[in-house]
Amino acid sequence: MNTIGNILRLTSFGESHGPAIGGVLDGMPAGISIDLDALQHFVDRRRTGQAVGSSSRDEKDRVEVLSGIMQGKTLGTPIGFIVRNSDAHSEDYDDMARCHRPNHADYTWQAKYGIRDYRGGGRASARETVARVVAGGIALQAIESLGITVASRLVQVGDVTQEKQFEQIISSAAHEGDTLGGIIECVIHGVPSGLGEPVFGKLHAQLAAAMMSIPSVHGFEYGDGFDMASKRGSEVMDPFVKRDDGTIGTMTNHSGGIQGGISNGEDIIMHIAFKPVPTLMREVSTVDIDGNLVMLHPRGRHDVCVLTRALPIVEAMAAMVVLDNYLIKRTNVL
Amino acid sequence: MNTIGNILRLTSFGESHGPAIGGVLDGMPAGISIDLDALQHFVDRRRTGQAVGSSSRDEKDRVEVLSGIMQGKTLGTPIGFIVRNSDAHSEDYDDMARCHRPNHADYTWQAKYGIRDYRGGGRASARETVARVVAGGIALQAIESLGITVASRLVQVGDVTQEKQFEQIISSAAHEGDTLGGIIECVIHGVPSGLGEPVFGKLHAQLAAAMMSIPSVHGFEYGDGFDMASKRGSEVMDPFVKRDDGTIGTMTNHSGGIQGGISNGEDIIMHIAFKPVPTLMREVSTVDIDGNLVMLHPRGRHDVCVLTRALPIVEAMAAMVVLDNYLIKRTNVL
Amino acid sequence: MNTIGNILRLTSFGESHGPAIGGVLDGMPAGISIDLDALQHFVDRRRTGQAVGSSSRDEKDRVEVLSGIMQGKTLGTPIGFIVRNSDAHSEDYDDMARCHRPNHADYTWQAKYGIRDYRGGGRASARETVARVVAGGIALQAIESLGITVASRLVQVGDVTQEKQFEQIISSAAHEGDTLGGIIECVIHGVPSGLGEPVFGKLHAQLAAAMMSIPSVHGFEYGDGFDMASKRGSEVMDPFVKRDDGTIGTMTNHSGGIQGGISNGEDIIMHIAFKPVPTLMREVSTVDIDGNLVMLHPRGRHDVCVLTRALPIVEAMAAMVVLDNYLIKRTNVL
Amino acid sequence: MNTIGNILRLTSFGESHGPAIGGVLDGMPAGISIDLDALQHFVDRRRTGQAVGSSSRDEKDRVEVLSGIMQGKTLGTPIGFIVRNSDAHSEDYDDMARCHRPNHADYTWQAKYGIRDYRGGGRASARETVARVVAGGIALQAIESLGITVASRLVQVGDVTQEKQFEQIISSAAHEGDTLGGIIECVIHGVPSGLGEPVFGKLHAQLAAAMMSIPSVHGFEYGDGFDMASKRGSEVMDPFVKRDDGTIGTMTNHSGGIQGGISNGEDIIMHIAFKPVPTLMREVSTVDIDGNLVMLHPRGRHDVCVLTRALPIVEAMAAMVVLDNYLIKRTNVL
Repeated sequence: MNTIGNILRLTSFGESHGPAIGGVLDGMPAGISIDLDALQHFVDRRRTGQAVGSSSRDEKDRVEVLSGIMQGKTLGTPIGFIVRNSDAHSEDYDDMARCHRPNHADYTWQAKYGIRDYRGGGRASARETVARVVAGGIALQAIESLGITVASRLVQVGDVTQEKQFEQIISSAAHEGDTLGGIIECVIHGVPSGLGEPVFGKLHAQLAAAMMSIPSVHGFEYGDGFDMASKRGSEVMDPFVKRDDGTIGTMTNHSGGIQGGISNGEDIIMHIAFKPVPTLMREVSTVDIDGNLVMLHPRGRHDVCVLTRALPIVEAMAAMVVLDNYLIKRTNVL
Repeated sequence: MNTIGNILRLTSFGESHGPAIGGVLDGMPAGISIDLDALQHFVDRRRTGQAVGSSSRDEKDRVEVLSGIMQGKTLGTPIGFIVRNSDAHSEDYDDMARCHRPNHADYTWQAKYGIRDYRGGGRASARETVARVVAGGIALQAIESLGITVASRLVQVGDVTQEKQFEQIISSAAHEGDTLGGIIECVIHGVPSGLGEPVFGKLHAQLAAAMMSIPSVHGFEYGDGFDMASKRGSEVMDPFVKRDDGTIGTMTNHSGGIQGGISNGEDIIMHIAFKPVPTLMREVSTVDIDGNLVMLHPRGRHDVCVLTRALPIVEAMAAMVVLDNYLIKRTNVL
Repeated sequence: MNTIGNILRLTSFGESHGPAIGGVLDGMPAGISIDLDALQHFVDRRRTGQAVGSSSRDEKDRVEVLSGIMQGKTLGTPIGFIVRNSDAHSEDYDDMARCHRPNHADYTWQAKYGIRDYRGGGRASARETVARVVAGGIALQAIESLGITVASRLVQVGDVTQEKQFEQIISSAAHEGDTLGGIIECVIHGVPSGLGEPVFGKLHAQLAAAMMSIPSVHGFEYGDGFDMASKRGSEVMDPFVKRDDGTIGTMTNHSGGIQGGISNGEDIIMHIAFKPVPTLMREVSTVDIDGNLVMLHPRGRHDVCVLTRALPIVEAMAAMVVLDNYLIKRTNVL
Repeated sequence: MNTIGNILRLTSFGESHGPAIGGVLDGMPAGISIDLDALQHFVDRRRTGQAVGSSSRDEKDRVEVLSGIMQGKTLGTPIGFIVRNSDAHSEDYDDMARCHRPNHADYTWQAKYGIRDYRGGGRASARETVARVVAGGIALQAIESLGITVASRLVQVGDVTQEKQFEQIISSAAHEGDTLGGIIECVIHGVPSGLGEPVFGKLHAQLAAAMMSIPSVHGFEYGDGFDMASKRGSEVMDPFVKRDDGTIGTMTNHSGGIQGGISNGEDIIMHIAFKPVPTLMREVSTVDIDGNLVMLHPRGRHDVCVLTRALPIVEAMAAMVVLDNYLIKRTNVL
């Protein structure tokens, strides 16, 4: 189940300290211009070492496209790609082979498979997200050619909601060997009305699944989200109006651009909540595989706060979901 | 895309005012005892007319199982079932054929398909959820035989979080012709560790997709959810401990029973936020299919607050996701 | 896995002697006119008692459409349908509950599920094909509106290839309490070029899977098929020519309308080989569930040769595959 | 749709003259020992230059596993792999960019995507099968650990069915610049009873789809196959018997190891018919993209007969289908 999507499908692979992370993006329509430099630039936004509080692991993250694009255009065939893991310090993890780090996937992974690549978290590492960003970056170029744009920003870091103070709280947490979570807002603009499957595959259900699959995400909402719960129906009506250009739209957008699971042409607005990074730069007590108490002295390189790096991941996931549903809509009428 | 699930799959069908709602639950293991009376009882919890503020439409909702169960046991074959629509007042909706009711799926459905069954919302009606409850009720009996239980309750109605006041606020909103949303908490107890697919199919991503696909849901979180965003890593550690019985568990459960997308054996805790019912018992202005301003005088029968009726729907979706992942785990080791 | 198709998907259910056979046809585009009388007529072609050598079980096979079609047009929503089992003689099968009939699915079904509905073969009965014919009959109407036609005929019954002698050989076999197989040829005309997925989902691979899934089918070929094996490359070239109307076509059609897994606009030609009906009207020795030797005295009603009844099933499967691929092609270019 | 399988899924990618062919094998159970040298040896069987009449293109076909296997054992994570294309002579194909070679996929591919990689057939080249052999070779090692073996052999080359004469007819065809097809027999031994999905996913339907998806295959049959059509029911009974070891088996195996779509424990026997290689070493007339008559002077390197090289491909596909169904069966009983 390392595949996401219906018609446009990303299948990804790769362990954090294996030879490479990669993926296959299948179902991309043929004939779309892809700017590989712009793609690399998009992928670079996810890299470490670019913001205060991000890991010092420095991966070049050079995207190598192996198929599906010829002379700058998609062929309609699967786009295979890899990103080599060049800066893995596997030895940092040798003493963790038998440990269950708290709030990590060590214990659960062992329970599921009976075996795990303990080096840098293996496949459970957030490093897998580089495949999402490559594939999503391609999808993004495709939907941009249709006039659809995706933008995301941090609206909360720790308990701070004022952007000016983000750097300060991150520095402060780093100083204490602690970590932070936060909230990202993502807005998709220009989505035509009619995208989304109205029952199980509601557009927001697909977006929720996509966003919740990003490591560390603990919550998702769209439109007025959780605030909807405390409002009355009369307060959150989005009355329809005829615009000057003859199109129909809504006066307000409490619904967040989706009604009955289908896009209505307004901006799609989502909030995605991230938990704090689980690896502290402190001694932590835990148990090993036999249940014995052990002390962890983390030596890997880790982010204090992942949210800046998560922005392109969120945008990538959004782009794939939108393009997938754009393609599905093509099949709704003969 | 009226199918949900991987190995255990529900495919549902039916319009609100058509002959029946139904579904096919495929992938159910063979030899499981199913108590059809208990199933009917579970489905009855979703019916109207049982709580203050629910619609007066009185459907008998008699479950008719057509296949897959013989002499009280599952056969391993698909379980086909229907629930007849016996109390449809289609004429209530004749003047809505050309109207886009605000906050409904009328406009978006028209944009997607170019045609719609306007009678009672057609397939966009929450009446489709009866198929979820039938299928989920069967899944629930299966997981209960494994020692897994699912419980849900209202933790917020409108802006009220105290259960004693729920009836009062519903009555008050009904009196004003207004409607309410709220928040449901769902806890799954007894899930073995090791369920969930660690990348795109994280257990909480599947649960999010399932819950977000329920009509009116606008937000999903698990564990500490959105509150995670404002906490420090050191505050939400779930330290592992060896229990007296030799098993490993966590001392706290900020993670909500899922780590790295895989269950860890602790209770899985979720919150699901519902928007207020979109149909007010008031005059509402909107536009018709041509964009002309029209006044709506709603005459159908509608809930003021759907949350009580939504409890079995939430439990049904949870049960299907858990059983599906239980079956997937069977394939993880040869 | 009771679902077939990618975008257009049929999920079927039902045991031979249960209340009903049914299915859900999902993914049908919206706005297609469906003539339900013509559909019933198509389904009737599959019924028994209409040709020499067919079973005397007389099912009315009244198609009841439960959703997805309103006022003669598809809604884009799933088309749920059932066909009641009205003429089941379950008691004929009581003594077979513990027997493994040779060349039937009794033994294998027991091995797979540990339980089986022994009445009339349960879900292993060819009665399940009524769901295929209903769904395929709907797909057929859709592709006919696109100018695509499907025709099938018997080209071999037993060892006879001359149509005039088919009745005679069937009567002769019936007289001896024996049964016959044969070969059906199916031609799909008017398929536009460009349908089919070139690697795993080759159009002929999808057709093969669809046809091989029909009960009793033991072989599939397209174009020159098995004869291809003994020919030289120079003998089976299908040279391209420019036609008078400016289109490109092939001078011959050894390829059977498909090249590289994709339709080329020529007629798609297939042959499907059926084994003889497994149930003889003779005493047959076999073993019971414990391996003890038992004699079978078949008392059910069975066909001597199923091929006439299989024609609409073959056409139904062909229609679903073609329409599915027609829809997929919509997504190949943005 | 470059994915095959249900629980065990291969997604492949790559064009003949692009940087690499590769794939992702997802769903492999964890903890299986994989001998990478044996895997390379299996892949080498597919290489050219090893038998009379095979292409002189000499690819090293070095398998590079990028994930999913650590210290010789599967991790349960997706196995990503690539095989570099090192010996591509793209310039051989420059003058074919605008030509539709007869019996190739040039014309149909253009019709489907409006663009194609004309170099060496692009993705339509049989070079894609290297990904099948890598993935299938891994699956093969897994099923061998379960006591299941797969063997295949040529039973017909051109019109010759006697093995001693195969080399001679190939040399003779090569001398004439002509090409040959043939028939491969594949036998799977040791499959436990109970594998296969009884309706659409019959084991033989899955095998048919897998085999028919191999380039150049035009026909598939199992058991007595097309010969079944001309036999009487009484001739092809496979009577059940109790064996000395207490197990139940069949005295004959006309059914080819599958009854009602489910394995019965006997050998699974299939025949797969290949058309002659489409590229002749002769001048051939065809049309270009505008329909103008052109002469082709083939200069690429091509096989006279692919069947020897196709043996590991057939075995690979068989292994993947069997393992996939072995895993599915795990979910049939709770």
